[in-house]
Formats: sequence, C-alpha cells, structure tokens
Amino acid sequence: MSKADESGGEVGPLANDVLLVFTPVAEQTEWIKRVTNRFEGLRVRWVNSLKADGTILTAREVPAEVWDGVTILTTFVPPPEDLVAKVRLIQVSSAGTDRWTNHPKYLDENTIFCTSNGIHAPQIAEWVIGAWLSHQHHFQRYAAHMKTGYWESPFATHIEDSTGLRVGILGYGAIGRACASIARTLGMEVYAYTRGERATPESRVDDSYCVAGTGDREGLIPTRWFHGTTQAAVDEFLAQDLDLLVLSLPLTPETRGILSRAQFEILGKGKKAFVANVARGGHIDQDALIEALESGKIRGAALDVTDPEPLPSDHPLWRAPNLLITPHVSWKTDFLWNRLLDVLEINLEKLATGQPLINVVNRQLHY
Amino acid sequence: MSKADESGGEVGPLANDVLLVFTPVAEQTEWIKRVTNRFEGLRVRWVNSLKADGTILTAREVPAEVWDGVTILTTFVPPPEDLVAKVRLIQVSSAGTDRWTNHPKYLDENTIFCTSNGIHAPQIAEWVIGAWLSHQHHFQRYAAHMKTGYWESPFATHIEDSTGLRVGILGYGAIGRACASIARTLGMEVYAYTRGERATPESRVDDSYCVAGTGDREGLIPTRWFHGTTQAAVDEFLAQDLDLLVLSLPLTPETRGILSRAQFEILGKGKKAFVANVARGGHIDQDALIEALESGKIRGAALDVTDPEPLPSDHPLWRAPNLLITPHVSWKTDFLWNRLLDVLEINLEKLATGQPLINVVNRQLHY
Repeated sequence: MSKADESGGEVGPLANDVLLVFTPVAEQTEWIKRVTNRFEGLRVRWVNSLKADGTILTAREVPAEVWDGVTILTTFVPPPEDLVAKVRLIQVSSAGTDRWTNHPKYLDENTIFCTSNGIHAPQIAEWVIGAWLSHQHHFQRYAAHMKTGYWESPFATHIEDSTGLRVGILGYGAIGRACASIARTLGMEVYAYTRGERATPESRVDDSYCVAGTGDREGLIPTRWFHGTTQAAVDEFLAQDLDLLVLSLPLTPETRGILSRAQFEILGKGKKAFVANVARGGHIDQDALIEALESGKIRGAALDVTDPEPLPSDHPLWRAPNLLITPHVSWKTDFLWNRLLDVLEINLEKLATGQPLINVVNRQLHY
Repeated sequence: MSKADESGGEVGPLANDVLLVFTPVAEQTEWIKRVTNRFEGLRVRWVNSLKADGTILTAREVPAEVWDGVTILTTFVPPPEDLVAKVRLIQVSSAGTDRWTNHPKYLDENTIFCTSNGIHAPQIAEWVIGAWLSHQHHFQRYAAHMKTGYWESPFATHIEDSTGLRVGILGYGAIGRACASIARTLGMEVYAYTRGERATPESRVDDSYCVAGTGDREGLIPTRWFHGTTQAAVDEFLAQDLDLLVLSLPLTPETRGILSRAQFEILGKGKKAFVANVARGGHIDQDALIEALESGKIRGAALDVTDPEPLPSDHPLWRAPNLLITPHVSWKTDFLWNRLLDVLEINLEKLATGQPLINVVNRQLHY
C-alpha cells in the first residue's frame, strides 16, 4: 500500500527499495540526506570500494548484510549473481556494459541497466586533446631535453597547429561529442562515425547525460557523417585523410579489432593520423599498432586502454615509439562521483514517477 | 609621376618601393607573383634567413646589394641601422617590439612599425592548453612509468578536469583571447586583465589580425575584467583563486618582474595556480619561481620563455619540479609564414591606398 494515498503526492514509491552505492568514493552525507528526504522510505547504504592501500574492495569483501535486500545498486564491477538477486535497477559507473556481458542479471531483461554515459566525457575529451597537443607540440621531446639542460634550436622541429586539420571520431556518443567541441574550437574539421545512420537533425541528437557547457548534444559540429556496421564502412572513414583519429566507441563483438593491420595501412596512405584510444584495448590489434608506430604509418598514438590491463611490464607496447600509455585513467576526475550521483538521482526520480529512465542500456548493443 | 593618371586606378603607388622578405622560410613564388601583379612596380626580394644547419643568417651575412634601396622590410631580428636607412615600413614577425627598443629606426617616428600580432595566437594557445592539460592529467608522470612498464593504480592520483575551474589571462590580446576561447570550451571561467580599462563593449574589441574561427575578437568570453598599470592592480587579479594563470602580455619596463616573490605568495594562498608563460622570460623572477615550485606555492608551471635564452645548461630552472620548459617554440607552426604574408599583404594594400595599417605599434607601449 502506497503512502501516496495519505499525502496526496508521489511520496513513498521507493519505500520498499534499498539502494547500495558501491563506488570508490567516501560517503557523501549531504547527498544521502537529500535523497532520503526526497524519496520517502528509501534506505541508502554506502560502501567506499577504495581501500586505504589504493586497491579495490571486492563485492565478497563487503559484509553479507550490506547486500541483503538491495534493490537498486550503483557499482563499477559486476558483483556475483547471488548478491544481487533482488536488484531491479543497476546504475553502472562506466559508459559501456561489456564487463557485464555474460552476467545472469544482465541476461535478465527484468533488471534495468543504466550506464553513466556522459559523466566521463569532459575529462576524457581533455585527455584526448591533451595527448594530441602534447604530441603535436613535442612536449615529451622537450621534457627529455630538460634532463640535460639542452636548449634545442627552435628550428630543429616542425610544429603544426590544429587549424584546418581534420579529426575523425569513431563513435559519436557523449565522449566523442566532448572531443568534437574542443577540436572545433582549435579550428579543426570534425568527421563523425556512428553505427546507425544519422541523416536527420533529430537522429543526430544525443539525449544521454551531458555536463552543461560541454559536448555537442544537438550533433551540429560534424561537417560530415559516416556510418555502418561493416569493416568496409569503417575503412572508408579511415581513408578520409585524418590528422587525428579518436576511438570512442563501445567494445562489442563487431567492433573488436576494428583497428588492425589493414586499417593502419589505410591511415599510412593518408596523413598518418595520430590515434587516441579511450574506448577499450580490444579495439586495436596491438601487434599491428606497434608495427605501425615503428614504421611511421601513423605519426603517434595515445592509449588509455590496453589488452590486457594491467599491461604486463615486459609487454613490447611499452617501448613503441611516439606512444603515450596511461593506466586507464582518462575517466578520472575529482568531479566524477558528483556527476554519477546526479545521474542516479535523475533515475531515482524517473523510477519513482514511472517515467523512462535516462542512459538505459540497449541489451543488444551493450551501451 | 604616378601611373594612376594613365590607368585611372590605384596602380603604381608602390612603384618606388623595394620589399625585402627576410624570414626563416623558403621563397614563396606564388605569393611574390600575386603581390607584384597586385602592386605594379613593387620589387620583391626574398632571403631565407634559416641556414641549412638550423642556425639563423645575420643581416650582415646577406649581400649588401640585397639591402640596397629596401623601403619595406619584414624581419624577425633588427638589422644594423645602416642597412635599413631607407626603410619606411617594417613588418616585424613577432608580436612585440621589445627587441627594437633602442634601435634608431624605432626611435624615428617616420618609420612605420607593424607587429605580426595575431599570427601566433592559435599555436601559442594550443601550447598553453596542451601544457595545462598535460599537467592536470599527469602525462609526464605516466610517460616516466612507461620506461619501466609500470601500470600504476588509477587510484594513486587525483585528476581534476577543467569544468568550473578558473583561468586568469594577464594580457588579453590576440594570444590571450585564443587561450580564452579554448578554455571556455573546456568549461572554464575566464578572467581577463588588460592594461587600460575595457568598460564598454567597443573597448573590448581587438582589431588586430585574427585567424578565422579562433580567439575572442569581440571580447565576449571573460566573465570579469581587471585592469591597471600598477603592481597592486595585478596583485588583486592574482588573488582571484586562479587555477591557471596565463602570461600573455608584452614585456615593457613596467611589466618586467611582474611575477616575483610576493606574487607567488599570493598565488600560494589561493588555488596554487598553474603558471604558463608565453610572453617573455623577463616577466618572471626565476629564483622566486624555483622557490614557489619547490615549496608547492604553485602546482606547476610551463615556460616557453626564459631569461636568458638559451637557458644555460647548468641553470637550476631546468631541475625545478612540476615544470615544463620549451625552447621558445610556442609561436611555431608550419602555417605561420602564410599568416605573416597575409598581414604583410593587407598592409601593402593599406599603404597603397592610403588607409591606416593594421597592427601598427604604439611606440610608447612597444606593441
């Protein structure tokens, strides 16, 4: 029986729910207070999954009573099935759900999965543009010269600024759009690639969570749109004389290895794009990447993701030239968890009022 | 006697002029052809000042007959007085004229000096934003880890993206405006500092050369404007809890040492700004900077300019923490000389038609 009858309002629709926030962040008492006031009867539990030593608490390490009765969960890693039996809404803290692919809850269509699509976009776009500018302006080279106090002649190198250069964004979702917005301000031409065709203005809109003032929600920035689900369609996109190629697409069976030997050949015939991968390591054939870097088929690359992760210390990728590797940190920002809690709060409101949630996963596409 | 009488047009007003292009770039025959067609009788001479070994040709090394009769000159370094006796217009290829301060031609008000203000703005802004993002996203740290194949825990560091952070731009000319445009797209709040007050919309416009699609010609981006010619006014600006401080002002007697010990103290009481200097080395007291970096009064710095240049290999600045030094290269781009020739061509047209030139130097301000 709903309390709404007594108050005449929408009070209490989450009164039977138990929310567990299981993320690497300290308990935010203000947020809990606001949410429990807003959704009467909702019980909120909070577990900081970041241990003092910098490692991550596993779901099994959390006391069983904390999992007991949980119906709404926000988490980064998938917990074992038995712990989440009663969960009806899972708000993941990543943009894709490839970690969940074979999880029984994920296969159960009655469990709603929402991504945190959009909360990572500003910082990942900064990572992409920062890596691009660092490469174009030779920052690693000059940082190395500092060790010996070497003031190199300014005329020893060429530098190209970005005005008039072209970026191809493979996967034009929240992250790709945040990259596009900055790239356009640098004077770059933006080409977008999407899975499905975006022929109309309406189809170009992205309605996922977007940090105010960033991105390209309306899809107005690209001067050309490409699409398709075949490697041939991707290859045509790669042949567009790109200076910068951004991989910001989900990892699915059809996108695994989307940049392999043949694709680096294509890039090598054009402007030898700089490749930035902020998606998943599995998108790139790493042996082919090393070969492309060593032979100069591409001018450089930056990877925030590798396969596997962590990358073993003796992996040859560490020693490839013109490459920056970071340990899957591009999503990081001190402002992240406030954004995740924003998305969660929006979806609690939608759930309480019976509206469609935002960032709901398409179980066929896994994002 | 002018040929204009014969043709009825503005033909031949530069017929008595000899233009010498003395810059580190190969002769551009297309440009010469267009300009000599456009300005009938104008003689154009071209000397590539970049030697094959990467060093720069001095004016004295250029054969005397090349200097003979030159009336319009574009150059980077000031030539000896006797070589430029007949020059009436000097189009310098730098944004400031501090190199010229005591040159007899500069003291002669009959010689027009024009800067190339605006042609450096896009690449210098990229350098500033690239250095800022590299610092904020710890790229140097991760690049160092690559040498040992160390995959650091993503939770070992904090990263702040730029949304909601504040940049203070000391000197809101063409370069500062190009920085502002990118910073705003990153979601930053922009505070501008100018020498004179900019209280009206008209006063906020910058009419120097601007690369299309970049910058902030109208002066619409800053949310707060500061101004003044005193150190107290600058100090008030520095006290605005800046996350990023950009030095993009000319070096003049009154701006020398504008960031000294007391100013780093002020920054240290706020958000410990990252300091990017793309102006001149003389703006910063380098001993005070080293102390500020070592003691953490500022979070880091990037210098494209030092005092002196080249910085001696045993100078302690090379070893200061959280610092990037580049050898005065932020102005560089393969697209630079086309922009300089654009400015020169605009000014030849103004000269030929008796209109006020663009980028004319104010002899009191040296920019």
